[in-house]
Amino acid sequence: MGKKIVIIGGVAAGPKAAVRVKRLMQDAEVTLVDQDSLISYGGCGIPYYVSGDVADEKELRSTSFHMLRDEFFFEKAKGVRTLTSTRAIAIDRTNKTVTVENVQSGEQGKLEYDQLLLATGSQPVILPIPGNSLDGVFTISDLHKAIEIKERIAKGQVGKAVIIGGGAIGLEMAEAFTDLWGVETTVVEFMDQLLPKAVGWTMATILTKHLREKNVEVFLGEAAEEILGEDGRVVGLKTSKRTIEADLIVMAAGVRPRAQLAVEAGLHVIPNGGIVVNERMQTSDPAIFAAGDCVEIVHLLTGKRFCAPFGSLANKEGRVAADNMAGIPSTFKGGVGSFIMKAFDISIGAVGLTLKAALAEGFDADVSLTSPSDRAHFFPGQDIVCFEMVFDRRSRRVLGLQGVGPMNDALSARLDAAAVALANSATIEDFSNIEMCYAPPFSAAIDAINAAGYVAENLCDGRMRQIGMADFYSWMDDYSSQPDWQVLDVRHPKQADPLVEALGEQIWMSLPYEQVRDRYEELPDDRTLIIFCNAGSRSYEIQVFLDSVGRKNTLVLPGGYNVIRRMGASWLP
Amino acid sequence: MGKKIVIIGGVAAGPKAAVRVKRLMQDAEVTLVDQDSLISYGGCGIPYYVSGDVADEKELRSTSFHMLRDEFFFEKAKGVRTLTSTRAIAIDRTNKTVTVENVQSGEQGKLEYDQLLLATGSQPVILPIPGNSLDGVFTISDLHKAIEIKERIAKGQVGKAVIIGGGAIGLEMAEAFTDLWGVETTVVEFMDQLLPKAVGWTMATILTKHLREKNVEVFLGEAAEEILGEDGRVVGLKTSKRTIEADLIVMAAGVRPRAQLAVEAGLHVIPNGGIVVNERMQTSDPAIFAAGDCVEIVHLLTGKRFCAPFGSLANKEGRVAADNMAGIPSTFKGGVGSFIMKAFDISIGAVGLTLKAALAEGFDADVSLTSPSDRAHFFPGQDIVCFEMVFDRRSRRVLGLQGVGPMNDALSARLDAAAVALANSATIEDFSNIEMCYAPPFSAAIDAINAAGYVAENLCDGRMRQIGMADFYSWMDDYSSQPDWQVLDVRHPKQADPLVEALGEQIWMSLPYEQVRDRYEELPDDRTLIIFCNAGSRSYEIQVFLDSVGRKNTLVLPGGYNVIRRMGASWLP
Repeated sequence: MGKKIVIIGGVAAGPKAAVRVKRLMQDAEVTLVDQDSLISYGGCGIPYYVSGDVADEKELRSTSFHMLRDEFFFEKAKGVRTLTSTRAIAIDRTNKTVTVENVQSGEQGKLEYDQLLLATGSQPVILPIPGNSLDGVFTISDLHKAIEIKERIAKGQVGKAVIIGGGAIGLEMAEAFTDLWGVETTVVEFMDQLLPKAVGWTMATILTKHLREKNVEVFLGEAAEEILGEDGRVVGLKTSKRTIEADLIVMAAGVRPRAQLAVEAGLHVIPNGGIVVNERMQTSDPAIFAAGDCVEIVHLLTGKRFCAPFGSLANKEGRVAADNMAGIPSTFKGGVGSFIMKAFDISIGAVGLTLKAALAEGFDADVSLTSPSDRAHFFPGQDIVCFEMVFDRRSRRVLGLQGVGPMNDALSARLDAAAVALANSATIEDFSNIEMCYAPPFSAAIDAINAAGYVAENLCDGRMRQIGMADFYSWMDDYSSQPDWQVLDVRHPKQADPLVEALGEQIWMSLPYEQVRDRYEELPDDRTLIIFCNAGSRSYEIQVFLDSVGRKNTLVLPGGYNVIRRMGASWLP
Repeated sequence: MGKKIVIIGGVAAGPKAAVRVKRLMQDAEVTLVDQDSLISYGGCGIPYYVSGDVADEKELRSTSFHMLRDEFFFEKAKGVRTLTSTRAIAIDRTNKTVTVENVQSGEQGKLEYDQLLLATGSQPVILPIPGNSLDGVFTISDLHKAIEIKERIAKGQVGKAVIIGGGAIGLEMAEAFTDLWGVETTVVEFMDQLLPKAVGWTMATILTKHLREKNVEVFLGEAAEEILGEDGRVVGLKTSKRTIEADLIVMAAGVRPRAQLAVEAGLHVIPNGGIVVNERMQTSDPAIFAAGDCVEIVHLLTGKRFCAPFGSLANKEGRVAADNMAGIPSTFKGGVGSFIMKAFDISIGAVGLTLKAALAEGFDADVSLTSPSDRAHFFPGQDIVCFEMVFDRRSRRVLGLQGVGPMNDALSARLDAAAVALANSATIEDFSNIEMCYAPPFSAAIDAINAAGYVAENLCDGRMRQIGMADFYSWMDDYSSQPDWQVLDVRHPKQADPLVEALGEQIWMSLPYEQVRDRYEELPDDRTLIIFCNAGSRSYEIQVFLDSVGRKNTLVLPGGYNVIRRMGASWLP
């Protein structure tokens, strides 16, 4: 018999490592332990199971060839001894044993290991507010919870739901509740925008508008203060601003690494954080590896450790751990935080840092906001994707890319290319020259990702001066804050006129793009002109021209009407 | 007045450079010259104009804000002097002038330049066969030709068409003819596969099958020998194997750089090839730049120069040329040959080298063939993408990625990520760890691109031994070529049995995956077992297991039934 390998945790990293290490060392005795009865499931698929897109929870735990990944599958097909409903309760590093306990019988036993993998995952944050243990309060922590939620909805027990937390899981659940089941759903987010860690305010505002159009109520900047109950069951949520009726509440306020076992074993763990591993996924004990949501990985842009609880990374980390347990010196160098989600008819996603995060990290950061077509603008079905590309002005390194697009793979294509580029320390100029495959049904001759690079170059080199979208919105709410500002709309009068009429020429004036070279002297020169078009490119061109004739008091509104239309505004006619 | 900039060629690189250089130097006198009356059009959109997807040719020459990009647009909106119907006939490098001629009046003149850009594009190869100038023989060289073809079809003058050449333009035209207009269309390709420069035989075979299902006849390995005419009009094509009736013939046998002007000016030009430029798009005369289809760029994998006639690269090259004319030291480092096209309901594309090209370049090349899902396999609407990843066994560098997928952006997303990776000299291991953004509606937890890396690792390290798809097909056509081979189908008996029945157990035997560990001793040990499943992953797992019990005489058929079903075969029940 070969090495004894014990793997604790059976969702993503654990099973991946188990089958890989078994393939690499067929003589190894590989034991997979999980406290749950259901293992090896696609946790990210839970919202689609709840929505009904995925009819049966078994689909989430089946292979692509429709075989159920239960303990028998792992034993028979994979040669991996699999102990479900078995909790690991202690690690004895000296004697290299793990004490396990059957969660039904309470029976205990010891598993010997030569090498151990901790793949204990993450656990949802439970907000310490009154009522948090009432019947009807859920976290999305495992498949059982998902099954129970779906059953309640299917039985008609849920007319109104509240999601606490505007992160990905919460929003995916909101869609599931609303779209198929018609549950009146409200999302309550403590921060002043949705997805605060992933995207900037502009992208988040587009998302908020879309959710509201799809009948999801969204309250931002509101703290959940108390969960209200009657007879032990949830009836509502009291926030810092209002009370919301609810038959069901999902706490989706983030996850934390499940690292207690590692802490108790004396391994190096970040306080209140994840297990520390090296590039080989080895913990501070060389015989113990860790992978998946329970570890902290290196952020390739900041060099700092961070938690990246994604099933995709868990699989990669699990595979690298398995390789190293089998003597193959594989490495996992870190991540750039690739993220994407579906929200009804749109996609929203990100890689790298937001502007806010980049500034907080001390970068000399700025952002290019663009709104190009996702494919040739003459191709039927083309749509707009809005992008924010964050870069460092000093080093010209690209730090992040966030975007919102239609519900297809156009956004993910750009994020994926960007992820590879970021991991290779790409500069703005590198982005300008990324060789996206081109044909009109798939992309534009100047691809969105290149265009983002172009704009960033122009900003970095001082050829383009812009106004931030948030500043523009502030001013539109209160003109007196900048009494000498005026919008110069260079779009066709058919597009500009409704705004000129609604807001008055002192706020919004029109001069078509192609007439500016002949008529620029008509423009006022005693105020700051905010140049406005559909996407920002005509505005930039006009700014450059006006600079050349000495009219330098202009700012471009990047992204233009394409972005504003998607964000919405009370002043839009 | 500032610098005098003359730009010859007004389709893609030329206009891009003209407007960029004007923006960078508003005081420059920029003159754009083109022999055609129509300029700045999306040439890659021509097939979609012919098909009717794009209703009006003007859409191909309009901005995203619906302004026609004609000479007035360039003058008024861009400040670029624009001379259409004006041919550049000679360059006087000593006196820095270009002699131009009005193609209608024959009137000649001279344009002075401080800097000159050649963006003269490419011209289609005219096959030197009898009948090549008959009425009804077309190339897709400009918009006028496209307009004439569409008119003939719309008037009902084209019942049958033949496309000579199975490259991208030919196939896109074949789709345009067949799909909307119902023209009986035949593609004749000299090589033994479609897209011979872009993809390998397996991917091309999938494409051929799909085209035939869509009523495009495809003849491979056939030379066009004579175009047959009556009364000066095309009536058919005689090939090396048959005569095909046709009212219209499109010669789509490739393009050549249009470099005559550069040759006559004594610039460094590859014989029968493109203009040689440095990273700044400067020719051998530092005052003369060149960009677009007329130049040869550096292939980032081979280091050699090659022609890459893509509108996307033309725009990038034009921009870099403009930067350098304006004193900004931008560089264009080369390309990896990103390519994609739509063919009815599928997408097919490539980056880097095919296996054949890699072997010809002297690499120790091999290929991993995979057939994963384009998104989570449980997500509604998921589909299969087939990939060939080419790599060098010695350096473990990835050399290319080719694929066929459904008609969405799933393939382009992987190709785009791969293009960035290839340009950064990525290894197989780098591909295994590319951080694709993950959510079930967009991708799988183990993304297709990572899976391709995994398989390549296993091949490179000798853990997986495979049989090439072409070798497998040869054997299926003639079992006697390898009398000791036998297929071991490890899929569910429901899937395997029809093949066992059709071909006999001596050729095709069944033993389900999950039973192999218990029943492997039943397997014959006197022959080579070709292990077969849906995608190749179960086959690999079984191979590894059989190795561990001393049964080492096995080969995996990579990609499995997913690929074979798409390729088609006479022996498939």
